[in-house]
This record gives sequence, structure tokens and C-alpha cells, in this order.
Amino acid sequence: MAIDLTCPVPLLGADKILLAHGGGGRLTHQLIETVFLPAFSNPTILSRHDGGVFPVNGTQLAITTDCYVVNPIVFPGGTIGDLAVNGTVNDLAMCGARPLALSAAFILEEGLPMEILRTIVTSMESAARAANVPIVTGDTKVVDKGKADAMFINTTGVGVVVAPKPVGPDRVRPGDAVLVSGELGAHGITILSVRGGLDFEGDVTSDTAPLWPAVQTLFEADIEVHCLRDLTRGGLSSALNEIASAAGVGITVEEVAIPVSEAVRSACELLGLDPLYVANEGRFVAFVPEHDAERALEVLRSDAVSAQAVRAGNVHSDSPGIVTVRSRIGGHRVLDMLSGEQLPRIC
Amino acid sequence: MAIDLTCPVPLLGADKILLAHGGGGRLTHQLIETVFLPAFSNPTILSRHDGGVFPVNGTQLAITTDCYVVNPIVFPGGTIGDLAVNGTVNDLAMCGARPLALSAAFILEEGLPMEILRTIVTSMESAARAANVPIVTGDTKVVDKGKADAMFINTTGVGVVVAPKPVGPDRVRPGDAVLVSGELGAHGITILSVRGGLDFEGDVTSDTAPLWPAVQTLFEADIEVHCLRDLTRGGLSSALNEIASAAGVGITVEEVAIPVSEAVRSACELLGLDPLYVANEGRFVAFVPEHDAERALEVLRSDAVSAQAVRAGNVHSDSPGIVTVRSRIGGHRVLDMLSGEQLPRIC
Repeated sequence: MAIDLTCPVPLLGADKILLAHGGGGRLTHQLIETVFLPAFSNPTILSRHDGGVFPVNGTQLAITTDCYVVNPIVFPGGTIGDLAVNGTVNDLAMCGARPLALSAAFILEEGLPMEILRTIVTSMESAARAANVPIVTGDTKVVDKGKADAMFINTTGVGVVVAPKPVGPDRVRPGDAVLVSGELGAHGITILSVRGGLDFEGDVTSDTAPLWPAVQTLFEADIEVHCLRDLTRGGLSSALNEIASAAGVGITVEEVAIPVSEAVRSACELLGLDPLYVANEGRFVAFVPEHDAERALEVLRSDAVSAQAVRAGNVHSDSPGIVTVRSRIGGHRVLDMLSGEQLPRIC
Repeated sequence: MAIDLTCPVPLLGADKILLAHGGGGRLTHQLIETVFLPAFSNPTILSRHDGGVFPVNGTQLAITTDCYVVNPIVFPGGTIGDLAVNGTVNDLAMCGARPLALSAAFILEEGLPMEILRTIVTSMESAARAANVPIVTGDTKVVDKGKADAMFINTTGVGVVVAPKPVGPDRVRPGDAVLVSGELGAHGITILSVRGGLDFEGDVTSDTAPLWPAVQTLFEADIEVHCLRDLTRGGLSSALNEIASAAGVGITVEEVAIPVSEAVRSACELLGLDPLYVANEGRFVAFVPEHDAERALEVLRSDAVSAQAVRAGNVHSDSPGIVTVRSRIGGHRVLDMLSGEQLPRIC
């Protein structure tokens, strides 16, 4: 049985930044709501989406940004470089936007071997080519030895929104089906096992992948997509909680329906982690109306990255803002937002 | 007399990242040319501009990115926050683009006092309001204590190109006038004096400011603007060398024409620095054809931030790729690109 990850942490009045403020869970949410949103108050940022969407001469543009601080910078299945490209491509995809161009900015620690930088840059170029998006501008800063951890990368993406209607939490409705695009937890368990020097059976590797091709198939098939969210920091649980809260709806998922590989499941049991809280870098959740649910699954399964898509649950009007999971043995439990810090520096 | 800053440093075959790779001088240039451009090869990035310009449904968009690692994060005249907003607004302006939207991404060190974060965020909001550009999306990561230096910020900006013709080094022609928008060196000397605990007469404060309003006046007056470049890392000398090299032209500036405040000049003499190499965060150089030079100066002087604009020199076809400065006593010297690291972490 997974341990309870909702153990108490200081939630209010924290006067210093904690690792958990970057964990994607409750403290991140609180930091955004109490520090960033009140300052940067404008309609776009207040939509609380994965990216900002705004019109330019009749075209809807999306912009999204992420800093990558993953440790280690090279891991089974990827590097900080392809993670940085895929992650930003994916955030654009979650806005229903086709990626147009990326920027790449580096903070390098003095003394970083040039060969490592070349390896990372090469992996970024491969990922950008795979996602068919050019890296059009960049920046490099160097800080003194000991003032950064090898390297950090920011990627920011600009895309054109192709979704015929805005995709976002405010379009989620009771009756919507909740689709999960594939097996959960591989990225987080990979990073954790490398950091801990653990050797898990089954060779878990990161799921980092570009999600735009899968998302594009939904729009090309005229699926009525209400909301999309990638399952990064905080995993499925954080994504569903954010959406339930923003949309004012209840969400129930079936534990038995959610795909988790045997290797990830074993690792999670050993480590006392719940795979629903573990970060993914190539998985997303889609909210579609009931009448499109089966067709959406078929379409998703036609793309390699979402070949194992499933229907994981549904949206309802009971208990607004609350996410519940029906366990394998039939009981219900509340799937709370991650409170503390599960896996720091996972992306 | 300023010391020679072109002292020898290992230029080729560096197998580790040095602080000078982030200094904006020759090693930065070399890193870009040998590591980044060969990997991220596309027509936009190969234009070697301050930002990438690309078309979307008939609109020319510009995107530009910068990480800010300035130390200290609060200094006379500004903070890392307004520097991050102004710097990216300015890079858009240098592409002839009106800023539309910014993203803001934070890397925070565990333990950072929340009050400091609030101060920085507030200064960003003020700078964004002053530049009339919304911050529409963001990201926060936290790294363990000792793995970053208080905070780093990335801002990335998207703008609409309003310049009727592309602005860039490839449009610089022999005969162009070289205009400098105001007094040089205040930002770099401010940071250096705070870091060194120095107390310079005249209270030098950072010149951080948004440059779009001044640039906009040029386009509104139908000035034929060939190239714009802000004078950040590496100062005027790096900007002119990059442009001379990219345009295949010679540039000569008059030392006596270049405005430097008495306080900055004294500080530079004391520290053995040449103000032409010192970073600015609210100054730029404009290349315009001779027939527009006087009118461009008048227009620039109508905006507060460029009220002290001067004509500093001219472009010619002698010695392509070389920048020379005619000294106060009439001799010529080559103004080389900064070779080593003058002032690390200036922005």
C-alpha cells in the first residue's frame, strides 16, 4: 500500500521558499495564488492555463515557459535537453496549439565540461527535429562554480492555437469523460532510481516525448476537446485537482483503469509512493464529452505515444473541487493534491 | 588610462565552461558559433539577431529570451526583476518589435526569504506596467540550498515587428551614421560598486529602462532604421564588433563624442576599466543612413531615456569587420571585442 503523501507541512505563512514550493503540489499552487497572480494580474494569466493565449492580428497565439532543473542532467531515456524541448512543446499542445518556435536559454555552472554541453545541445536539436519545431533564439549565462548545479535550461514556446474553441478547465462539464494517454510514473521513477542508485527490475526509462502529434489527431478528427493537461510535477493527482478546483466540478477515477507498468508499480510499492502522484513527461489527460469518448480513445491509440490511452473516469457535479479514486476493492478515497515534496527536481 | 582588456585568455579548445563564456565577449561569441549555431541551425537563428523573427499568418513575430543571474539581486536603480522585464522588452525593441507579451520563469534557491521574492515580483510588475506589456504565463522551480544563488529569472518576450523593413546587421551600409542613445557604463559600474563595497562619488545608479518607447519614435517618424543593438554584456565595443563582423563593414567612433558621466569616468579610471566595454541596461546603438541622421537624433532626444543621444561615428568600407576609435588626442586604436571576463553576472 502506498504511504499517505498528504502528511502535514507548513501551508500558511511560510516565510521562506521550501523545495515543496517547486513540487507542483499545494505549496506551488499557493505560491502562484498568493504571490504571482496578484502581481501579474491580467485576464490571460488569470485563466490559470499551462500557457498564455492572446490574439495577434486575428491569430490566437499561445506562449508557455518552463525552467528545467532536473538532477541528474542525463538519465535513462533522456536528458535535461530533450526534456526541455518536449516539455515546452507539450505545454503548447495542452493549449491546443501547434508549436511554431522555441527559445532556449542556458544557465551554466563554471567548470561544466564542454562535452556535456555538446551532448545536451545535440539532444535538444534531436528533440526539436522530432517535434518539427525550430529553436530560433537563445541566451547563455555562466555563474561561478557552486552557484548552480551543472546547468539549468529555460525553453519558451510560441504556438498557433488550432483548437476551434478555447481548451481549458472552464470548459470541463459534468458528464465529460476523463482520458489518460498511457502508463503513468515512468519518468519520476527513473529519476528517483538514478539519484538513489537503485536498480529496478524491468529497466524503467523516462517517458519524455512530444505530445503534439497525439493531440493533433484529436483536433483533426473533430473531437470536441474540453481540456488537456500534461501530467508532470505532482502527476495525475495534481492535474485533476487543479482542474476540478478551477472548473468547480467533481472528478472520479477508477484505480483499476489507470495503466501503470509492473516495474513502476513494484518500484512505487518499494518506495512507498503512489503512482498517481509521480511525474510523467510524456503523458496527458484529456476531457471530452461522453459522445466523443470512444472515438477519442480510438484516435489516441493510433499514435505511438498514446497507444495505451484509456478512459480513467468521469466528471460529475457531486463534491465540486474534489477528486476521488475508486480503489481496486471498490472503496472511495479522496485523491488530494500533493502537499509536501515528493520528488524534488524531477524536471 | 584604461588597462588593456584584450589580454590573452584560452580562446580555442577550452574544454570547460569559463565565466567568460557568459561575458558577452569573444568566448561567448565562440560558444555560440561552435556549439549552439551548428546544432540549432535554421535561417532564423542564423541571422544572429537579438531575437528570432518569423512569420505567422502574415504577421512578423519576434521572440527573444534571456536568463538573468545578476548578483546582487537588488542594487541602486533596480532589481533582477525589472532588469528581467526591461532587458527582454529591449531585445524585442532591437528587432523593431512592439512587445506583446512576456513569460516569467523563476529558479529559486531553497530558503529564499518570501519577502525578497515579493519585492522582486513587485518590481517586475511595475516594470511591465511601465513598458505596457503583460506577463501572461510563468513557471517556478526550486533547487536545494547551495545549488543556485538566491534566484535566477528567465523572461521571454513575443512582439510584433513594426519595422517596415527587417532591422539587422545585414542592412548596415558604408555611410551609415552610428547613434548612441545616452551616457554609457552606469549599470556595470553600479553592480561592480555594490559587489565591491565601493562608494563612488556621484551616486551612480543602474540605467535599466525600457527602450521600446524611444525606438518607437524612430519608426513613427519614418526614420530608415538599418540596425539596432542594446549595449548590454560587453558594452558598446561588443555590439559594434558583432555588427561590423556580421555586416562586413568597418566602424569608426569618436571617443570624444561618446557620452560618459563624470562619476562613471572616475570610477572606470580608478578600476582600470574602459567605459566602452562596460554593460548598460538602458542604452542602445542605432544605425541610420546619413540623410536621416540629424532627424533621428532630434526624435531620440524627445524621449527621456534617449534625451542625451549623440552621433558617435560612422560606417565605412575600410577594414571590414574592424572597429576603430579615434581618441581624444586624434590617434586611432582598434576597439577589439572583450576577450576575457570583465564583470561576471552583470545581468
